[in-house]
Amino acid sequence: MIIIVAKNVVKKDSIDEFKKLAAELVEGSRKEEGCISYALYEDINNPNILTFIENWADQKAIDIHNATKHFTTIVPKLSGLVEEMQINLYKAL
Amino acid sequence: MIIIVAKNVVKKDSIDEFKKLAAELVEGSRKEEGCISYALYEDINNPNILTFIENWADQKAIDIHNATKHFTTIVPKLSGLVEEMQINLYKAL
Repeated sequence: MIIIVAKNVVKKDSIDEFKKLAAELVEGSRKEEGCISYALYEDINNPNILTFIENWADQKAIDIHNATKHFTTIVPKLSGLVEEMQINLYKAL
Repeated sequence: MIIIVAKNVVKKDSIDEFKKLAAELVEGSRKEEGCISYALYEDINNPNILTFIENWADQKAIDIHNATKHFTTIVPKLSGLVEEMQINLYKAL
């Protein structure tokens, strides 16, 4: 299993648009075969920090995800709404 | 439920010591009543990045956790082994 933590510092006036687009991305991603879980979280202390935490079966599932229409159309739009984006892929120890 | 993502960039020569101390912290934390899950993850692309992902029942459980002996003795030691520590508390959207 691979966990992706994708942390976004969203521009102040773009939070609503980010959340709307993210909801579409969550919906599409959850339907994928290798997706174990996929959700968006808000930092309790800073509403500008919105982070996807995703569980995937394996790297192959992530490669397929990265090529889906929902990923390739929505992620570039999200990138335009953030000040900073940090993506880490993790394995359990 | 509150998710904590505690991302650490560990000093190169301190990785083994960090992992050893982290294992004690994981063991103690998992025994706490409000702890739903608690684990350490390694970045697939950078072994210096070690991140705790923790699920807690509520803020009260986190407050109790922050006052436990395993937390107050181990976390300061971990802090001395890292170049950077980023802690975010999240709620689901």
